[in-house]
Amino acid sequence: MHMQEPFTETIAAIATAPGESAIGIVRVSGPASMTIADRLFSGKGTPPSQRPGQTFLHGTILGDHGVADEVILLIYRAPASYTREDAIEIQGHGGTVAAKRILRAVLAAGARSAEPGEFTKRAFLNGRIDLLQAEAVLDLIRARTDRAAQAALEQLTGQLSQSFHRLYDSILRIAGDLESTLDFSEDELPERIARDIAASTITVEEQFRSLLASWDEGHLLREGASIVIAGKPNVGKSTLLNALLGKERAIVTPIPGTTRDSIEEQLVIDGYTVIINDTAGLRDATCEIESEGIRRTNELLTRSDIIIYVLDGSSHFVESDLDPVSSLSTKKTIIVINKTDIISDKYNRSFVSTWSPIYISAARNEGLGDLKAAIVSHLGSLNGVPNRAVISERHRQLLISAHAEIKEAALLFSGTDSDPSLAAARLREALNILGEATGRVYHDELLNNIFSRFCIGK
Amino acid sequence: MHMQEPFTETIAAIATAPGESAIGIVRVSGPASMTIADRLFSGKGTPPSQRPGQTFLHGTILGDHGVADEVILLIYRAPASYTREDAIEIQGHGGTVAAKRILRAVLAAGARSAEPGEFTKRAFLNGRIDLLQAEAVLDLIRARTDRAAQAALEQLTGQLSQSFHRLYDSILRIAGDLESTLDFSEDELPERIARDIAASTITVEEQFRSLLASWDEGHLLREGASIVIAGKPNVGKSTLLNALLGKERAIVTPIPGTTRDSIEEQLVIDGYTVIINDTAGLRDATCEIESEGIRRTNELLTRSDIIIYVLDGSSHFVESDLDPVSSLSTKKTIIVINKTDIISDKYNRSFVSTWSPIYISAARNEGLGDLKAAIVSHLGSLNGVPNRAVISERHRQLLISAHAEIKEAALLFSGTDSDPSLAAARLREALNILGEATGRVYHDELLNNIFSRFCIGK
Repeated sequence: MHMQEPFTETIAAIATAPGESAIGIVRVSGPASMTIADRLFSGKGTPPSQRPGQTFLHGTILGDHGVADEVILLIYRAPASYTREDAIEIQGHGGTVAAKRILRAVLAAGARSAEPGEFTKRAFLNGRIDLLQAEAVLDLIRARTDRAAQAALEQLTGQLSQSFHRLYDSILRIAGDLESTLDFSEDELPERIARDIAASTITVEEQFRSLLASWDEGHLLREGASIVIAGKPNVGKSTLLNALLGKERAIVTPIPGTTRDSIEEQLVIDGYTVIINDTAGLRDATCEIESEGIRRTNELLTRSDIIIYVLDGSSHFVESDLDPVSSLSTKKTIIVINKTDIISDKYNRSFVSTWSPIYISAARNEGLGDLKAAIVSHLGSLNGVPNRAVISERHRQLLISAHAEIKEAALLFSGTDSDPSLAAARLREALNILGEATGRVYHDELLNNIFSRFCIGK
Repeated sequence: MHMQEPFTETIAAIATAPGESAIGIVRVSGPASMTIADRLFSGKGTPPSQRPGQTFLHGTILGDHGVADEVILLIYRAPASYTREDAIEIQGHGGTVAAKRILRAVLAAGARSAEPGEFTKRAFLNGRIDLLQAEAVLDLIRARTDRAAQAALEQLTGQLSQSFHRLYDSILRIAGDLESTLDFSEDELPERIARDIAASTITVEEQFRSLLASWDEGHLLREGASIVIAGKPNVGKSTLLNALLGKERAIVTPIPGTTRDSIEEQLVIDGYTVIINDTAGLRDATCEIESEGIRRTNELLTRSDIIIYVLDGSSHFVESDLDPVSSLSTKKTIIVINKTDIISDKYNRSFVSTWSPIYISAARNEGLGDLKAAIVSHLGSLNGVPNRAVISERHRQLLISAHAEIKEAALLFSGTDSDPSLAAARLREALNILGEATGRVYHDELLNNIFSRFCIGK
């Protein structure tokens, strides 16, 4: 990694969300931080620049027209700060005006407005965190559930970085071994080295698989799991949707549907964000425009993470009622038998028993706990290991590309037209690609892509 | 003032606004603060409870399931804290989840959720600030403009408190002097004391007047000045409203009108929040329901702080066009002659000259700077002294009541049926009333009224 030249500019931004609140913070980082503190801060005793780091002072910030705010001033001495630079943090009053007054004074005293994510970008460029950790900061701030926050924290504390570093080091070792064979002719290739390379390649494959497997969980945590409620007309789909939402009314937000006919609603079940798609309108319309309706239903069923397929327990349903989901995985399908309050004895339950159906009465709010438990269990089986650092779509793409290079290298090394030199070049390319994940290798466009999604002040 | 027993409970709350942001803060105050810090905080070196105040540490907060967040922990030692108690402040990541995770850990470790304003209430009850300053904290957080923030800061730093204390002390001196006369018979009353009391009473009157005069400014800063745009149909009232709003589009928020016919819009002019009431629909409807229309217009004109009365410069307007405002104060009326781009020479300007009219073309955005300057000037003349601590409605009511007691006392002392004893009792009552302003005298209902309006975490 190349050494970052110290930044010459001092940056500043409001670091708290706007709105009525107790505390607002202006954060300042860069070489002029202490000068700015001395110029603006008025308090008892020695000036801020003469104070040690990890201390804070109580006083006032002076603006154009007298006191801008009464504040707490935190002093960070390089390298013990978020950015590894000298930094100060000014805690003033919350609300919409006070922090702006402080920021204005700080900018007038020589700082410039920070760009989105610029503090974290400096933390990365100054080597305090790698790119995976920088991205974890964003995930943590954006997290809507505990589980998502937990996964981001695992990534922030470096667990995902370690996985990537392990993978990187394994490939580096193979590449080294491989390169050491370049001096040999093929016949001379020591058996031990060939065996080692083969064994290492298996380890690497496992590491790839394990990392890629975490993407499903990451996808669920970041985007939310999609659930479709399906079934024939009048089985109680809408009642069920309302019952599920009613239980979590406080955290329901309607999301504009992707189609005019279906409404998506968002709720949180046991730490998972879940987006429920009510197909009621869609299904009930199938009699009118049969083929289009079936096509769209099937698309929804295929696309969704989980299907809740509702049967009417009060009617005489038959095996063909399950046709729409019979071809789909039982792992993603939950069969719900509704209307247990007026359940009919007429039907033969045996053909649904393989699905382990959940019995509910949506109208009476009965059995919903079982259904939620089933949803969580299905979500868990989608990813297996909860509460671990998980990869993002960016990491996934890099892993897939790197993996392709490794597979190419394996062919080039072991095939009949073996070319260890080309194989080694492929491995180096794989290392380059993986380096983009952690930020060993980076370019401006990559950094801009990542940090422009941050909020200002982070 | 009575001594406050130390609070036994430790309180905690999120102190930053929700939303995507860099930093979220959980604030904890009370005797268990250090124990909680030791239990939850994990970092290098000696535990928080062994550290001096005004220092901060970097580490992690441990929750139920491992790390709740990576944080900065600020240590406050009593009495050097906001509440004068031992306190800690935990800075974690922004967003909606991280601060909640920290708060949950803190509550599990023995704190209870703070009520709205409870930290500030403790700051008051523990004698760090008086009630006027506590109210200033709320005003500062709620401030929508720089001027409002400035006024709140003057109050927060104790300038308004000083004014109230001076008034209190003056009355206390008079009461003392008065009580010293109680031993004399009326004939014996020393001339000097009577003179002193009379002189002091004049001083007190001036202090009352000065304090009460600041209410107008406070009213404008807190509620915003109300401006009505009035005039005959088609003189360009709506165009003018749009032109004014267009200039400040970013900070415009529509407020639901009090009547269906008029819409209120809010903007900020030179630090004043201004609520503009467009009477267009109202005025244009007067031909239909004449008397009701005039009644409502007059009500609006009387109620508003400023009237912008628009005349059409392109038409032949006559003196009677000014009838609706001719009876109103020139101090609150700004005459605007619109359509200067197609102005007519036909009319005689002389009769409007006494109003110092502003010439504009709302359609062309010309002259709006002059109009705004006139608005600011009129707002200034409403209150006189900008940038000073200003009283609220609560203070005004207390001042009016206390003033009434003083005037009663003056009558009881100087009249023919002079009764110095009753006069002294009146003065004591005035002191009690004034004491409620600063909080020398308080009761639960008063405190609840004040602090329940605070946000949680302050």
